[in-house]
Amino acid sequence: MEGQGAYGRRAGHAEGETYLADSRPEEQLGELGEEDDMRQNEKYQSVPEEDQGLDLDDSKLAGDIGYDDGDSILLNQTSSKGPLRSKLGPYFHDGQRRVDYVLTYHVEKDPRSRHSSSKTFVRSLRESLSRSFRRSRTDSCPPEDPEIAAQEQRLDYHEDDLRFRRDEFEHKLMDMGLEVEKEEGNKIPGVGFLKIHAPWNVLCREAEFMKLKMPTKKKYDVSTGSNVVEKINLFIHKVTAPLYPKVEENRVQTEKHLSYPFSREKQHLFDLSDRDSFFNSKIRSSIVYEIIKRTKCTKSKYTMGISSLLANGVYTSAYPLHDVSNVENVNVLFQSNKIHSQLMRIHVLLLQGDVEGVNVEPNDRKLLYEEWASYSIFYKYQPIGLIRKYFGEKVGLYFAWLGVYTQMLIPAAIVGVIVFLYGCATVDDNIPSMEICDERNNITMCPLCDRACSYWKLTEACGTARASHLFDNTATVFFSIFMALWATMFMEHWKRRQMRLNYIWDLTGFEDEEEELKNHPRAEYEFHVMQKNLKKEAASKPRKKKLTCTDRMPAYMTILIMMVFLIFVTFSIVFGVVLYRISIKTALHMSSTSTFRSNVRATVKTTAAVINLIIIIIMDEIYGVVARWLTVMEVPKTDKSFEERLIFKAFILKFANAFTPIVYLAFFRGRLIGRPGNYFYVIGSYRMEECAHAGCLMELCIQLCITMLGKQLIQNNLFEIGIPKLKKLIRRRKSKRDSKQEEEFYRTLASHEKDHFLNPYVGLNPEYMEMIIQFGMVTLFVASFPLAPLFALLNNVIEIRLDAKKFVTEFRRPIGARAKDIGIWYNLLRGLSKVAVIVNAFVISFTSDFIPRLVYQYVYSPDGTLHGFINHTLSYFNVTDFQPNTDPLDPLHLGYRVDICRFKDYRDPPWSDTPYELSREFWNILAARLAFVIVFQNVVMLMSDFVDWLIPDIPKDISVQIHKEKNLIVELFMKEEQGRRLLHKRQSNQSPQQPRSRPPSQIQTNNR
Amino acid sequence: MEGQGAYGRRAGHAEGETYLADSRPEEQLGELGEEDDMRQNEKYQSVPEEDQGLDLDDSKLAGDIGYDDGDSILLNQTSSKGPLRSKLGPYFHDGQRRVDYVLTYHVEKDPRSRHSSSKTFVRSLRESLSRSFRRSRTDSCPPEDPEIAAQEQRLDYHEDDLRFRRDEFEHKLMDMGLEVEKEEGNKIPGVGFLKIHAPWNVLCREAEFMKLKMPTKKKYDVSTGSNVVEKINLFIHKVTAPLYPKVEENRVQTEKHLSYPFSREKQHLFDLSDRDSFFNSKIRSSIVYEIIKRTKCTKSKYTMGISSLLANGVYTSAYPLHDVSNVENVNVLFQSNKIHSQLMRIHVLLLQGDVEGVNVEPNDRKLLYEEWASYSIFYKYQPIGLIRKYFGEKVGLYFAWLGVYTQMLIPAAIVGVIVFLYGCATVDDNIPSMEICDERNNITMCPLCDRACSYWKLTEACGTARASHLFDNTATVFFSIFMALWATMFMEHWKRRQMRLNYIWDLTGFEDEEEELKNHPRAEYEFHVMQKNLKKEAASKPRKKKLTCTDRMPAYMTILIMMVFLIFVTFSIVFGVVLYRISIKTALHMSSTSTFRSNVRATVKTTAAVINLIIIIIMDEIYGVVARWLTVMEVPKTDKSFEERLIFKAFILKFANAFTPIVYLAFFRGRLIGRPGNYFYVIGSYRMEECAHAGCLMELCIQLCITMLGKQLIQNNLFEIGIPKLKKLIRRRKSKRDSKQEEEFYRTLASHEKDHFLNPYVGLNPEYMEMIIQFGMVTLFVASFPLAPLFALLNNVIEIRLDAKKFVTEFRRPIGARAKDIGIWYNLLRGLSKVAVIVNAFVISFTSDFIPRLVYQYVYSPDGTLHGFINHTLSYFNVTDFQPNTDPLDPLHLGYRVDICRFKDYRDPPWSDTPYELSREFWNILAARLAFVIVFQNVVMLMSDFVDWLIPDIPKDISVQIHKEKNLIVELFMKEEQGRRLLHKRQSNQSPQQPRSRPPSQIQTNNR
Repeated sequence: MEGQGAYGRRAGHAEGETYLADSRPEEQLGELGEEDDMRQNEKYQSVPEEDQGLDLDDSKLAGDIGYDDGDSILLNQTSSKGPLRSKLGPYFHDGQRRVDYVLTYHVEKDPRSRHSSSKTFVRSLRESLSRSFRRSRTDSCPPEDPEIAAQEQRLDYHEDDLRFRRDEFEHKLMDMGLEVEKEEGNKIPGVGFLKIHAPWNVLCREAEFMKLKMPTKKKYDVSTGSNVVEKINLFIHKVTAPLYPKVEENRVQTEKHLSYPFSREKQHLFDLSDRDSFFNSKIRSSIVYEIIKRTKCTKSKYTMGISSLLANGVYTSAYPLHDVSNVENVNVLFQSNKIHSQLMRIHVLLLQGDVEGVNVEPNDRKLLYEEWASYSIFYKYQPIGLIRKYFGEKVGLYFAWLGVYTQMLIPAAIVGVIVFLYGCATVDDNIPSMEICDERNNITMCPLCDRACSYWKLTEACGTARASHLFDNTATVFFSIFMALWATMFMEHWKRRQMRLNYIWDLTGFEDEEEELKNHPRAEYEFHVMQKNLKKEAASKPRKKKLTCTDRMPAYMTILIMMVFLIFVTFSIVFGVVLYRISIKTALHMSSTSTFRSNVRATVKTTAAVINLIIIIIMDEIYGVVARWLTVMEVPKTDKSFEERLIFKAFILKFANAFTPIVYLAFFRGRLIGRPGNYFYVIGSYRMEECAHAGCLMELCIQLCITMLGKQLIQNNLFEIGIPKLKKLIRRRKSKRDSKQEEEFYRTLASHEKDHFLNPYVGLNPEYMEMIIQFGMVTLFVASFPLAPLFALLNNVIEIRLDAKKFVTEFRRPIGARAKDIGIWYNLLRGLSKVAVIVNAFVISFTSDFIPRLVYQYVYSPDGTLHGFINHTLSYFNVTDFQPNTDPLDPLHLGYRVDICRFKDYRDPPWSDTPYELSREFWNILAARLAFVIVFQNVVMLMSDFVDWLIPDIPKDISVQIHKEKNLIVELFMKEEQGRRLLHKRQSNQSPQQPRSRPPSQIQTNNR
Repeated sequence: MEGQGAYGRRAGHAEGETYLADSRPEEQLGELGEEDDMRQNEKYQSVPEEDQGLDLDDSKLAGDIGYDDGDSILLNQTSSKGPLRSKLGPYFHDGQRRVDYVLTYHVEKDPRSRHSSSKTFVRSLRESLSRSFRRSRTDSCPPEDPEIAAQEQRLDYHEDDLRFRRDEFEHKLMDMGLEVEKEEGNKIPGVGFLKIHAPWNVLCREAEFMKLKMPTKKKYDVSTGSNVVEKINLFIHKVTAPLYPKVEENRVQTEKHLSYPFSREKQHLFDLSDRDSFFNSKIRSSIVYEIIKRTKCTKSKYTMGISSLLANGVYTSAYPLHDVSNVENVNVLFQSNKIHSQLMRIHVLLLQGDVEGVNVEPNDRKLLYEEWASYSIFYKYQPIGLIRKYFGEKVGLYFAWLGVYTQMLIPAAIVGVIVFLYGCATVDDNIPSMEICDERNNITMCPLCDRACSYWKLTEACGTARASHLFDNTATVFFSIFMALWATMFMEHWKRRQMRLNYIWDLTGFEDEEEELKNHPRAEYEFHVMQKNLKKEAASKPRKKKLTCTDRMPAYMTILIMMVFLIFVTFSIVFGVVLYRISIKTALHMSSTSTFRSNVRATVKTTAAVINLIIIIIMDEIYGVVARWLTVMEVPKTDKSFEERLIFKAFILKFANAFTPIVYLAFFRGRLIGRPGNYFYVIGSYRMEECAHAGCLMELCIQLCITMLGKQLIQNNLFEIGIPKLKKLIRRRKSKRDSKQEEEFYRTLASHEKDHFLNPYVGLNPEYMEMIIQFGMVTLFVASFPLAPLFALLNNVIEIRLDAKKFVTEFRRPIGARAKDIGIWYNLLRGLSKVAVIVNAFVISFTSDFIPRLVYQYVYSPDGTLHGFINHTLSYFNVTDFQPNTDPLDPLHLGYRVDICRFKDYRDPPWSDTPYELSREFWNILAARLAFVIVFQNVVMLMSDFVDWLIPDIPKDISVQIHKEKNLIVELFMKEEQGRRLLHKRQSNQSPQQPRSRPPSQIQTNNR
């Protein structure tokens, strides 16, 4: 009876206290045998804490996780059933009441336990035994032992203050009807747990306030249209059956429970036969969270909500509990072993034996782990319903969105590949590249750099020209139109999917509850207001309740300056890379090795792109941190505005970071080079970069390819997989325990303790951000890189499972937040897809040679073909017009004297009246390019709007169902009404003492 | 006791029947003196119909409105209070139950009464007296009198069928708890009225189903921010006080009732002290309408809702009643007298004397008439709250929108006038027009037509050039940017206003009830489905419940063809006008009179614009009819889709009609003229029109001016004021009664009879359509006509009051439809303001000379000014290059021989290598123009989006209030909850026989 002996050791603020408003576990009281005394202290009551002694035994591993050996045996001794559940499942010690929410706080560890170990154990055991007996007899308020009292006085004021606030908060919670149980320093030293349970009546009350839609008893048929449609649907479902995860709800549903906002007055409508499962764990935890958020500490100087309490360290964390499936701990341990989930499950079952086997009853988390968070089922649909059931609507919507996005990428990827293959197939039929490669067109080009370079033959650019064709052909134009429409289709498809989910998840009535949910001021905000008020009071000015613009001006200014500065940094980095490219190129050109020189272009391009990539990834992390810092400095009022402002800043910075080099390549490179004899120089004598002959598209393409692939590979693999693994490795080395031991320890932990070791849930914003940037890559420059959707698709297939694993095994369970949509992200997507139209228009008309080819073919070509196009794009330059000291050092490099060299531009020849002026063709083509931009932009926007208009936002069948549901509810109530009236009539007939015409008031007035 | 004697004349289907579910007016029964017999027929009971005899007396005016003289005296005799109300107010005959809704139907007039008058009167009196006595004794079902039975058999089958359906429908309504009263052929022959009253319990039940938000007892402060803000608001309100109508609710409100969806279980929350006024007349009527819509006749071959019944003539009309304010009839009578409303009110009061004076108690309609529907208060705000209270949210939103639009036009008009004045002020400093007018620039222009015209001097175009400057200057560009932003601001402002109204009107919770409201299939649709089913049955195919695509294909094809044809007609008309202009111009040029010729241009322009205007107005009406016809043919399923499709078609047709001539003028005129020596000819030898020298902007401007002013003047004055007056005049001449007599007759009519003479409410679509077209005029071509907003403003100030008058006095009261927004019109507005950006960009860059001037100034001008611009825009033409027979007949018209003439275009001179080719300047300017379009479009769109983003959709204070309201509701319920729990505790304490720990189930399971 060791555990029982340790009971009530530090009664004042000690571990093992349960507040029971109106019930107490009789059997435990019976074991104590002092029922009469306990009666007096019904509200603030202690229950036995079985393994306190063992905790002390463990605490020799100071600062580390405790480990307990004889625990399960002890457990089996003390009680038969309840405590078994309480031990490892998420239950109170009575084994009956479910833990719906956990608050943790810091506990000052007993100073003695730090220094001595075995001695302390004996001493504390003795102490606690004596105290428990003493207490059970007198049952007066602690502390009474002078030794302990003296110890407690040594605790500093701060600790007292925190405890004081905790006490107030807990009492407030109890006033709201919640039941709480404390557990301090058990197994995990230094951490106190406040387990919260919401009893049935509290759940009902809150569900009514929150207008939670709950399924009623009434079911109705979900007809999917006529027989033919239904059959086709069934057939499709059968064919695609292997793609569905083996989760119950993914079967074709023919019935749906009618849902109605829960109301205690209409309880009879709901199926309350199983009260335990009527509100599932997600709903329970969000209800408790709702209450906690509403509760405020008012006794201290200023009122504090839970967010303030968390921020001030009164509590260290707050989280609902995961289902117990022994997924997380085993996974945490075995992640390195890469065991297949199925195998592992067996392994776990075998390992855990009987006692643990009871706990591994099938639950949602286990199902999610098997049917969702696994790479081996990457080809399957996600069990969205289950995700929503377990994590709440917000997380559900994220994964649904990610799923829709990935699914929509499939056709885009296929078309992209086809376009690419079309490029490959037609590369030999392409007249311009043939002309470039044709040795007979003996075209001498002007030197690419001053002095060091000499004249060169156009055939040297043959390879680049052929490669360019892969990405710069007619199909590209159609592909970018396709992708613009694709983006619109995607948005529409998502809207419909969202609507369908809203219907299935019974969110159709729910409006801006969400907003209300987040309107509580943040702790930092409250703190700042308080500080301001203190200052005001010092200057005896009236109090104000909010921060004004003037208060925020410094922060705003800093933000503005920082943002501008950071964007300037981004630009500088890009310019730096450009300089690197120019200088390296010049240097390489200087070297005389011919083979070396031929590889110059490719080398420079690739190294520059890699440098860019590395810088982008590093800056990405930095910008994320800076954006958070800036937002914290801004002190937004509510969590919602904090989130929005953070997203806004992070989006701008990360977007600028990712896209500046690409935009430079697409639109600025090769535009500002001047002309032979009048080049444009930067920093002394560096000539600006030229593009390869066939336009800059090729280089843009390489840059995009490297950025996309590299970013995804590095960010996903290194950051999301590698770094956690590294952390684990370090921790293991530090803890000096082998995996077997660690596993054993984890097994003995209770549910709330296990969850304590998981990472806190950090929200969905980083995930969304990553995807938005990717969406940008896919849509913005798709004209130059048709393979982008394919790369994105491959990445996302992995991404889904990676995120799934994180949510199921690595994060604490998030609070089931209700959400009807994906919020600001939808607007960003919409904005991006709009910008994409313009960007693509410019890429096609300015970066590619599409328009010049078209104009040549229909205006200048003598025979209506592209023959002679290359010649047409090249202007003449008289080598005598070189500025002094810029002519080649080696003019006879090609073996003959050059009088006239050619360069790529539309300029008048040296012999015209206006030598080297921009020619009529230039303006002609420029007008065509601009006209193309206008036409493309407006046509595609019109088409997008048309598609938008064509596809109804609410799917037909859903709107029919919603309507049906509404009618059913009215019908239900009408019937009820009639039944009631009938009952009333009968009653009034049976009781003749009542006047017959009681209700109608008009008769009474009529009789006057 | 004449009236009593006429009681119960045709009992079977006769007039004067009231169904009373559970009450009966005791005093009338007392007068009859046969209470015991009446008991048996409690449900289907007749009440006296006082003036049946007098009705017959009146019916000599066959086919016209009946007229009754001794009515009010009789009325005073029969009863003291109730019947007084029942007579003229909207009450049942018992004077207690309000008429909430009226259905009218056709009654076969007694064939005898058509032929004889006085004889019939005596006979029918005798008959009815005998029958009433007989009936009161036996009280069996009629008909029993063989004579009457024989008469009734003569009624044809159709009438019987209709009656049968009516009976069923009425019984269904009674089953729903409504109370009805019949009144047939009283005063107005041939029309039966079914008056419907909703008793209190029905109102409560339906209000609960409809989730009507009703004000609770709880009030809360509406704080408008800090003290300073509040003071400023108060000050502004005081200053603008004269602008507010004298309506109660326009005072600054500091309190607002907390609203909550009505629920009978939470009745105690609501202030039900005055049951009569808790649900106002608008709500009562919409509740009744809701019930009527739900009610279906099922006994006949196919189920029929109210819409089918109306369409099939079972009922002829259905309307709720206006408040009785004697506004409509007096107004109808006195409209021609143009009496000021205030004066008229006094007049009416004097006229009506005592009896009427009781009825003219202040009510909403009277208030609206005085404080809204009057031209004399055009400068005031509208009493939107009152409009909504009386007409419902949908009408309220229309007028609120119109008000916001008109208000927003004020700044636009001011800026427009300033821009115009700037043009006027700078006309003398404008270098291009100075150069044109300068005689020293001796520029000889090429002839404007073949043969007949000769060379002319540029100075002749001096006047046009100067006028053009008024609308084509730098300020115009800024004005069109301003107007694009203005449109966005307007949309935003409206969104905010809408949100504010939603809050004030307690619509924030209400979602898509509206949609559900309109999802009932239309009568025509049901009829078509039935027809189809009949055909199917004939071919023994399975029944289908809806029309498929194949059923609709013919209709769709017709619609498509018709639409294309009509748009083609529009184009043809425009082309016809162009041809008219060309031919008239040529003909006029042929005449030799010089003074005549100088006025040619102005004459042609103006006459053509007038012709265009007349055609537009005529076609507008035709297109409206065609659109309706096409939509009827399409057989849309629901009223909502009918409305949407109709709006869509009408919008396309009317828009094309209004804007085709303007678009032609802006973008096509003067573009396709060819060049001297190579003109472009249409229909034989007509050269296409050229623009005046300074661009087509001037003509566009004239066209816009005439269209806007003319359309508004004609449509408003002629159609909306003139034609109704004409109709009245004709009717009066037909009725051959003087106004005094008619007025007297109107006075004696009961409320439902008066309303029967009003025009049925036709919906808001025509009003919206007119405004949308006007909005198009204001925004689309604002670059060319800065005065458009001013014209629109002047029109709208009148329009508001005109529409108000229509709604208050000329239309039957509309059913108070709930609506959160203005629906499809908002999207159309948004679409228009987007298109406006592009159109304005093109107008500025292509129609005006803004870009050429800019390019000249910054690229070609030697001194950076516009000097020499005119010369630059003119190309040279060698007169020897004229095609044969196109050179002027009178080459020496100017007095000297012309070798080289000039024409407006950018072409190479005859002496260059490429004579008459488009020059480099042309392409240069074209590129500049296109670039301007891109920049303008994207910048303005970006700015619009920015403004959109900057201005929150929900005003700050409103969102705060909404949040506050929500919290208050939660608080209210929490308090209630606590109170109840406390009560429960006390009860359980007082009753010791109950176990103390009853509710918590966990204890019981714990004790196992």
